[in-house]
Amino acid sequence: MPDYTIQSISTYDARFPLPPGAGTDSIHATSEYCLAVTMLTTQDGPRGTGFVLTLGEGNRLVCAAIELLAKPLAGLSIEDLMSDFGRFSRQIADHPALRWLGPHKGVVHLALASITNACFDLWAKCRGVPLWKLLLDLTPEQVVSLLDLSYLEEILSEREALCLLREELPRRAEHELILQKGYPGYDTSVGWMEYDDDKVRDLTARAIDQGFTAFKLKVGSADEDRDLRRAAMLRKLVGDSSTLMFDANQHWNLPAAVRMCRELATYRPLWIEEPTHPDDMLAHVALAREVGPVKIAAGEHIPNRILFKTFMQSHALHYVQVDCTRVAGVSEFLTISFLAKTFGLPVVPHVGDMGQLHQHLVLFNHIALGHEVAFLEHIPHLRNHFVQPAQVRGGVYETPQEPGASCDLKVNATPGKQLKTA
Amino acid sequence: MPDYTIQSISTYDARFPLPPGAGTDSIHATSEYCLAVTMLTTQDGPRGTGFVLTLGEGNRLVCAAIELLAKPLAGLSIEDLMSDFGRFSRQIADHPALRWLGPHKGVVHLALASITNACFDLWAKCRGVPLWKLLLDLTPEQVVSLLDLSYLEEILSEREALCLLREELPRRAEHELILQKGYPGYDTSVGWMEYDDDKVRDLTARAIDQGFTAFKLKVGSADEDRDLRRAAMLRKLVGDSSTLMFDANQHWNLPAAVRMCRELATYRPLWIEEPTHPDDMLAHVALAREVGPVKIAAGEHIPNRILFKTFMQSHALHYVQVDCTRVAGVSEFLTISFLAKTFGLPVVPHVGDMGQLHQHLVLFNHIALGHEVAFLEHIPHLRNHFVQPAQVRGGVYETPQEPGASCDLKVNATPGKQLKTA
Repeated sequence: MPDYTIQSISTYDARFPLPPGAGTDSIHATSEYCLAVTMLTTQDGPRGTGFVLTLGEGNRLVCAAIELLAKPLAGLSIEDLMSDFGRFSRQIADHPALRWLGPHKGVVHLALASITNACFDLWAKCRGVPLWKLLLDLTPEQVVSLLDLSYLEEILSEREALCLLREELPRRAEHELILQKGYPGYDTSVGWMEYDDDKVRDLTARAIDQGFTAFKLKVGSADEDRDLRRAAMLRKLVGDSSTLMFDANQHWNLPAAVRMCRELATYRPLWIEEPTHPDDMLAHVALAREVGPVKIAAGEHIPNRILFKTFMQSHALHYVQVDCTRVAGVSEFLTISFLAKTFGLPVVPHVGDMGQLHQHLVLFNHIALGHEVAFLEHIPHLRNHFVQPAQVRGGVYETPQEPGASCDLKVNATPGKQLKTA
Repeated sequence: MPDYTIQSISTYDARFPLPPGAGTDSIHATSEYCLAVTMLTTQDGPRGTGFVLTLGEGNRLVCAAIELLAKPLAGLSIEDLMSDFGRFSRQIADHPALRWLGPHKGVVHLALASITNACFDLWAKCRGVPLWKLLLDLTPEQVVSLLDLSYLEEILSEREALCLLREELPRRAEHELILQKGYPGYDTSVGWMEYDDDKVRDLTARAIDQGFTAFKLKVGSADEDRDLRRAAMLRKLVGDSSTLMFDANQHWNLPAAVRMCRELATYRPLWIEEPTHPDDMLAHVALAREVGPVKIAAGEHIPNRILFKTFMQSHALHYVQVDCTRVAGVSEFLTISFLAKTFGLPVVPHVGDMGQLHQHLVLFNHIALGHEVAFLEHIPHLRNHFVQPAQVRGGVYETPQEPGASCDLKVNATPGKQLKTA
């Protein structure tokens, strides 16, 4: 197969102001989606793009961290790099001058995610296939070599990871039906915090027309009555048979979360998302135990496999909302999907990538790991900025067919500093 | 009392190469200590200095984050600011464009620490007293208003924090004896990872001569036999009655940590520090349970009060090594000291500040909160770079008498961008 050498690395600080109210939640009243983009250039070959989401001015910190972290990539063959990516990922995550700033969280880890996602995009483009297909065509050994399993050894060894893949091989053909059917989506855009009732009504009607049967509403406002009123309204709008989820974006402390989860249970949500601070694992444990039948979803601010492991071991969450633009990119996303499989938990990504990259990863999770088909969050605000926006029709993500990871952006990005090969 | 207005804020990226081998551990083979410094300037008044430690090139990311976060300080009266600092700290920690990058961890949280430490230094200088005295002269209500207790409510309310202070008032006079005796230190500099046996022997002899009776050795090398040999050597060098601590700097996974803690128990350490990844709270719980009588110390990479709360609730650590250059500065350090008091755990800071600022805070902890006198880590590598280096004589920190928090650096810092008042 063709191989290419990474010739230069550049970063872009891309900012996209959103329409009024879009993207607002209990913590974020502003509406600017920013992408810290990594571009990998090869000579006469394809260009790889990866990014992470941030919400404003701090985006440039991530771009600066990408410049520091990405230096070892220059001059590497993409096939060599990806043949042992787990080891590379660990090495870069433990950069002796940068590890102190985390470890494995915050700005530096976001930078690693952006870089990693660019590597996977470039790899798939070099092989001329969409990322989901590239991943499915790998042998179990090749898949496991993409992962950094350090600090998971007592739960998930290399051998155990291989077993998870091998056990699923006989069911692959059956699982592959999803490629024709498409992966179900759910709609997050009907219920942003600052939307008024009329707007929620209009958007919900439109989303139902488009074929969606699952919807998310922001809660956790300072006005608890408003939360409950909007929850009641949305349940009435979508009917008894549709699925509702509520998202508090960490607003509540534990006593408030217990009280509000119990109140909101009336409207039969599938889950309540980020009920409290993501570092308070024990508060999640208490909630998961005390507010049943309500289920707890969390992950968009859980930064790495080690913290996910502790959440899973402690029964602190029911839905694993890992985001490949929060953890260290595709590689750590896959690791956490292996962990979730071990613990029998569903993976329902938070889509900091607007679903572009995760649409590939949920196909791998279902087909290769046997994760049940759930649904993938759909946020269309940035779709005009992608070269190949995810196609969601009839409420379903159509299987992407273009080579790569669907992360290329149109040119309205602010160019950053370019790192040349030595 | 005199009041001053913060006129401008500037950052400095200060780097200090260390002598060969100094500062090395199982994770960091390099030897550069860097300080991301915040300077607060007033018109015709004192200048406040705060900083955090990092270990290399990433220092400039923290300086860049300081520039973004510190903007709201310009034009504020220091007395107004400090009269309600807990609220201000929460507000800045929840900056809507920067919170996504944590929350409350990593580069942005380090920046908040640097800024906060500069505020406390400036405040004490404006009042013309050392920081320990400023804190002790506050009323319980004034102390509690310095704290952000959000997400701790079910464990530590404002009322409970006030009670902790008031309960201790009758014992203050007795506790104040420490001001004359000085606070005991322990020596970390005899046993850096890359020091050979001869160097360890020489330094240990010198430290014993200087009056130290407690010593720390780096373990967690790839060569486990070397760790055990050095531990045996150091125990023999310091004798049976001295105190030893071993520090693995996160090197081991759980199975390795269990095995090595049991082996190292032979040499009767007071604690084993950072036995595994700081995010693996459950591994700490398992170790704390399984490797007794060895005690577990952790904290230099636990970034905030919420994570410390979960460690304490879970019995995951015996010694709380909170560092005011890792958590959000003096304010969150105090909050975590209140938590530790609630759980009956000793606070033995990790000194990313080389002890300069913590020498004030351990005095407050003992005198106002009734924490037992423990000992404070001593790392003298940067002492020539401070205007008022901590004075450790006879193995004891002498009580600092100069106004401020002892954080002023001599001029060998690289000036960064200056933020002017609007």
